[in-house]
This record gives sequence, structure tokens and C-alpha cells, in this order.
Amino acid sequence: MENFIYNNPAVLHFGNNISGEIGQTVKKYGDKTLLVYGTGSVKKNGIYDIIVSELNKNSIEFVEYSGIKPNPVIEDVYKMIELGQKENVNSILAVGGGSVIDSSKVVSISLLEDLDPWMVVKGKLKPTVSLPLVTVLTLAATGTEMNAAAVVQNKKTGEKIGFVNPLSYPKHSFLNPEFTFSVPENYTAFGIVDQIAHALEAWFANGDSTLADRFIASIIIESMELAPKVFAEPRNYEYRSKIMLAATCALNGITSLGRKYSGDWGVHDIGHTLSFLYDTPHGASLSIAYPAWLKLQKSRIPDRIKKLGEFIFNEPDIEKFISKLEDFFHSVQSPIRLSEIQIEENELNNIEKLMNKNSVNGLVHKLGSNDYNELINLMK
Amino acid sequence: MENFIYNNPAVLHFGNNISGEIGQTVKKYGDKTLLVYGTGSVKKNGIYDIIVSELNKNSIEFVEYSGIKPNPVIEDVYKMIELGQKENVNSILAVGGGSVIDSSKVVSISLLEDLDPWMVVKGKLKPTVSLPLVTVLTLAATGTEMNAAAVVQNKKTGEKIGFVNPLSYPKHSFLNPEFTFSVPENYTAFGIVDQIAHALEAWFANGDSTLADRFIASIIIESMELAPKVFAEPRNYEYRSKIMLAATCALNGITSLGRKYSGDWGVHDIGHTLSFLYDTPHGASLSIAYPAWLKLQKSRIPDRIKKLGEFIFNEPDIEKFISKLEDFFHSVQSPIRLSEIQIEENELNNIEKLMNKNSVNGLVHKLGSNDYNELINLMK
Repeated sequence: MENFIYNNPAVLHFGNNISGEIGQTVKKYGDKTLLVYGTGSVKKNGIYDIIVSELNKNSIEFVEYSGIKPNPVIEDVYKMIELGQKENVNSILAVGGGSVIDSSKVVSISLLEDLDPWMVVKGKLKPTVSLPLVTVLTLAATGTEMNAAAVVQNKKTGEKIGFVNPLSYPKHSFLNPEFTFSVPENYTAFGIVDQIAHALEAWFANGDSTLADRFIASIIIESMELAPKVFAEPRNYEYRSKIMLAATCALNGITSLGRKYSGDWGVHDIGHTLSFLYDTPHGASLSIAYPAWLKLQKSRIPDRIKKLGEFIFNEPDIEKFISKLEDFFHSVQSPIRLSEIQIEENELNNIEKLMNKNSVNGLVHKLGSNDYNELINLMK
Repeated sequence: MENFIYNNPAVLHFGNNISGEIGQTVKKYGDKTLLVYGTGSVKKNGIYDIIVSELNKNSIEFVEYSGIKPNPVIEDVYKMIELGQKENVNSILAVGGGSVIDSSKVVSISLLEDLDPWMVVKGKLKPTVSLPLVTVLTLAATGTEMNAAAVVQNKKTGEKIGFVNPLSYPKHSFLNPEFTFSVPENYTAFGIVDQIAHALEAWFANGDSTLADRFIASIIIESMELAPKVFAEPRNYEYRSKIMLAATCALNGITSLGRKYSGDWGVHDIGHTLSFLYDTPHGASLSIAYPAWLKLQKSRIPDRIKKLGEFIFNEPDIEKFISKLEDFFHSVQSPIRLSEIQIEENELNNIEKLMNKNSVNGLVHKLGSNDYNELINLMK
């Protein structure tokens, strides 16, 4: 077992009767908040009204920033910081999924010290304080509601970068499974793929932590068993709550206990490349990248892959395990090949170019530029 | 799934190179600490010297309170508070296992406001502040290093009471598996029984949380698989570290995700009765009480017990499952009957009397006084 420090200060409020706690929680940090949300689904499904009523009830002034898209961009972060500074807000209330919360995290750790947020994302500037961040989750997927990580992209520099900073833990996160009832089937699927991919990344962090292995397998099996149920009954509270809890646990640190790294993250690197180039939904990029990565690595780390197959499918044969994983991704209608999302032969060069530019590698089982061609061929 | 709030602010430092962080951590809270330890094993195994050197290195003054015994008593807590107040300490540094840390928790939440600690334990006085508590764990068992619970007994009133208060989370806990190398075989066993019992209590919290079920089973299976290895090689770092991590996870909240209660705790109630009367080690009391409780409950909650047997032993037959659990406890030389610890027929009345006095029941599958006689017969 490797030495580690574990701490997760976020307060998780989970359930269907928690909305009444949102306003008073935001109020703890002051009378004015920056309300952040995405492209408007919260207005259609009624969540926006609940939030505004909560803020009004607690006499909290708010300014709004909306329009954050999946695969969030740093341009929005700059504008949010400008607005928050001008309006002198005391907190950020992020209502949405990974993109809304991740963008808000960058704002949270850049605004008070007026740091260039892209330099913060790149690790070149080190924040020392953060503006309190409260989140209301509307999509089960990234786990960002209970961790200190975020991913943002910069169209100008051609980068999609993930970072971790302990200051960016949300203070409080509100998880009401009912708020995910209206998530469409494809994004429900991509969320499930994402949470499984987080658990898989943790598996490949390596290091001898058998309890972490068991937790990882628990999360993957739970997610796979629930997937068909959620699809069959998208408004079933039990199923939505279980998927939501599993997504949070897939990246809140418990899968990394006893290990130095939180994951390998090589597959996420590959996925970010696809999302950057083609705006591929994050989950879809991962269901394409993971099988290819496993096929590339199977001769390099056979024991680790074999043990994973045994844990989650009771399947000791590596080929059959990867094939079952592909079958699962397909069963939730998430693609496993580039051709399924209309990325054809003539694009493969561009993918390789960007992988080279961004030195896609991962933390543990590092990839080299000589792997990219094979990887892309395995994905195509 | 039931609504819940989850937050665990404790910072866990885990590994074999963490001693250098102890002094600077205590220093964060001030220049003078109350150093608490047990009956002297830390002086024999060198841990005391490491701690004192750490305190000296960081110019931290300290006053000592030692002699805390297993099954800690409130009398020590009163004396610790008196000493801490007189010496005006800024923190508590608890070096030991459950009894040392639990006593220190009561001190931590009573000292500053000069509250009667027994009234705090009984929930009749509500603390609003706590003296910062830092722990150095020397025994894997209770999980107290990463939770807000403590158990203390009062010889005068005839009570052994557990309480939970969010103010009593340790600020930092240092877990060096090497510090448990010299724990004797019987206390290693009782620790393993204790951590398994915590996971079992969580299982019987009920409520539909399949992910929590999987985490619980993970911890039990991990602990059972490691037990014979730790006995065979008590100075094996990997084995000691894995048992230590499993003990922490058995009661740090992750087994209760999605549930209202952290556990049933009826078996702990029974065990506390035995410990109070006969100073039975906590773990030994639990390996006696759990099989009896399961036998009493098997017709009342057959499905839940059956699912547990399937999860941890792949054994759907309830009788066989309980028998396998007894075999496991025996395999680590922990008793499963009162007669094995020389509590004979003529004592059974006294046990029943105290169970009645303390209204032993549990939170979920409540016991009534009409159950006590049958329970005791199943334990004898």
C-alpha cells in the first residue's frame, strides 16, 4: 500500500426533500451570489424556479450567468469572473452538471485574487483562497460535486485540461435524484459511461490496495446493473438515486484509498482529444477510448486487466472481458468506434496530431507518441 | 434510498513516513497540548519517544495524561478536563486505540465550555465548540480515528454509552501501520471482530442502498481474508496496512450512504452490557453477541440475513451462514459463547437485569425486554 492523505470536506445533501436547505446554505456565505447554469434545461424542468424561490425566500440577491455548454470553455470563465467581481458576489451557486460546476470551480479559485483562470488551470498560478462554491447537481456523471477536480478547454490554445486543487471542493453539494428525471437517454448513458470510466481509471492507478479494488468493482457492478433499469424507467426515484450515488462515489476519493494517484487518466486524455476536436460528448469519447486502451495495454499489464475482468464479469479471459465491456457500452447506446460517430479515415491524422501536441499519456501506464497510431487504429 | 447528509472533515494521514507531519499539525492549533495515552505500551514500543521528539522539534509544550484502559471510564475524562483547563492547553494529542481516542473526544467537546462530560455523553448538554483533537492510532479496530462517535462507561451509574457529535471529529488522524506491529494476537483479533461488527451493524441499518451493501460486503470480505495473514505475519506492513484501512472504512460513513441510520447497533448494546459487567474486551463481546442476535432475528428479517450470507460467503442458507460466521470468529480465537470466557449459568440473571436497566434495543430491529432471556440463552 502506498502512503496517502485523504480528506474530503464537501458536505453532501442527498434526497428529495433537500431544496429547503439550499437558500439557507448559500446565505451562510453572504447576501449576494453568482447563479450559474447551462443552456436552459433548468428553466424547462422547473429547477430554476425552485432555486430562485429559495434565494428569494432567504433574501439573497443574485446575478446570473448562463449558457455553459458541455465541454466547457475558458471564455465563459473569464466572463463569469468579470461579472462576479463587478457585482461583488459572496458565493457561487452552480446549478447543473459537470460543465457548469467545473467552470464555477475555476471561477471560485481565481476571482478573489484576480488570477488569470487559464494560468490557474495550467497550474502556473497558485490560488490561496476561494470564493465559496455551492452546487446543485442535475446530472449524475462526473463526480465533480464531491471532488476538487475540474476540466476546461481553451479553443485558442487547442487544449482541454484537467486540474485538481484542494481549494476547489464545493462547500456543499445538493443531490436531488428527481432533478435528473428529465435527463435524456443519451446523456444518462454518457453519464453512466463516465462514472464507470472514473472507476476504471482508479483501477489502473495500480499499487496494492485490495480494499480500493473492491470499492471500484462495487461501483462498476452497481452502475452496470442499474443502467438497463434507469433506461426502462427514467423517472424511477430509486434507480436515479442509486446511479447518482454511484457516480459521486466513483470520484470522491474512496476508490483511491491506499494509492498515490487517483487514477491512470490516460483514457481521459484520449477522450479529451476527441471532445476537443469534434465536441464528442465526454462519455461517448470514453466508451470509444477505453476498449482501445485496454487492447493496447493487454500485453503490458495482463495481470491487472485479468483481475478486473474477474472482479466485474467473473471473466478471466482478457479478450472476452474487453468484448463484454464493449457489449455493455453498446447496450447503453454509447459508441465504441469512431466510425459510429461519423469520424472517418480522413480525420485520423488530425487526432494523432493533437495527441502529439498535447502529449497524451496518463500518469501510470504512460503512453508514448509511438502508441498513438495503434490506438487510433483500434478506435476507428 | 433514504435521504441523508454526508460529511467527514477528518484529515487522514496514512503511511509509514508520516511521523514528521505530527508535530507541525499539532502546532497549527497552538503551543501547548494535552498528550493522552493508555497503560504504557507506547513507551515499550517506541511510539511515545517518536511523539515526544516530534513535539520537542516543534517547540510544543505538553502535559501528559496516561493510564486510559480498554473500556474507558468517565472518571478519567473528568481528570483530563481538569488537567487541560489548569494547564490551558490548545489541543489534545491522543495516542492510542479506541479507548484513548474516545475519552479524548469527550474531553475535546466538554473542556472549553466547562460542561459536565457525562451530561455531554448522555446528550443532555449540547457543546457548541471543541478543543482541536489530533490522533495517532495504535490499534486497528474502532474506526474512531475518522468518525464523530465515542463510547464511555460510568461505573457509578452502571452505564456504557455511545454518542455521536459532529464536533468530535478528529481534525487530523495519523495512521502508521507500523505502529500496530506489536499489537498482541488477541487484540488484533478483537480489532478485526470489531471492524466486521461495525460493517454488520451498517448492513442492518436497512433501507435500500445497494451500493452501501456492496461497500459493507467489501469491508467484511477484505477483513476476513486478511485475518489469517496478519496472524501469520504480524509485522508484515502490507497486511497491517490493509487491516488498518478496512477498520477505518468500516465506520467512517461510507457504509451508511443512502441510509438514515449508521447501523442497527443492537449488538453493540448487548456487547457493552457484557463489557461493563465483566470487562470483556469489546471485540470478544461482539463475537459472542452477533451470532445470538442473528439467530434471534432470523425469522424476523430472513431476507436481509440471507442476502448478507450470499454476499460474504456465497451462502444462501441462513443456518449455515451463521455457522460460518461463528467459525470465522473462532478461527481468530475470539469467543462465540459466554461459557468460553467463564461467564457461567449463575451470571445470566445479572446480564438480563442490566440489559433491562439499560433498555438494550438497537435503532432499527429493536429488541424488547422479552427478547433478553432468549438472547442470553443463545449466547451462553
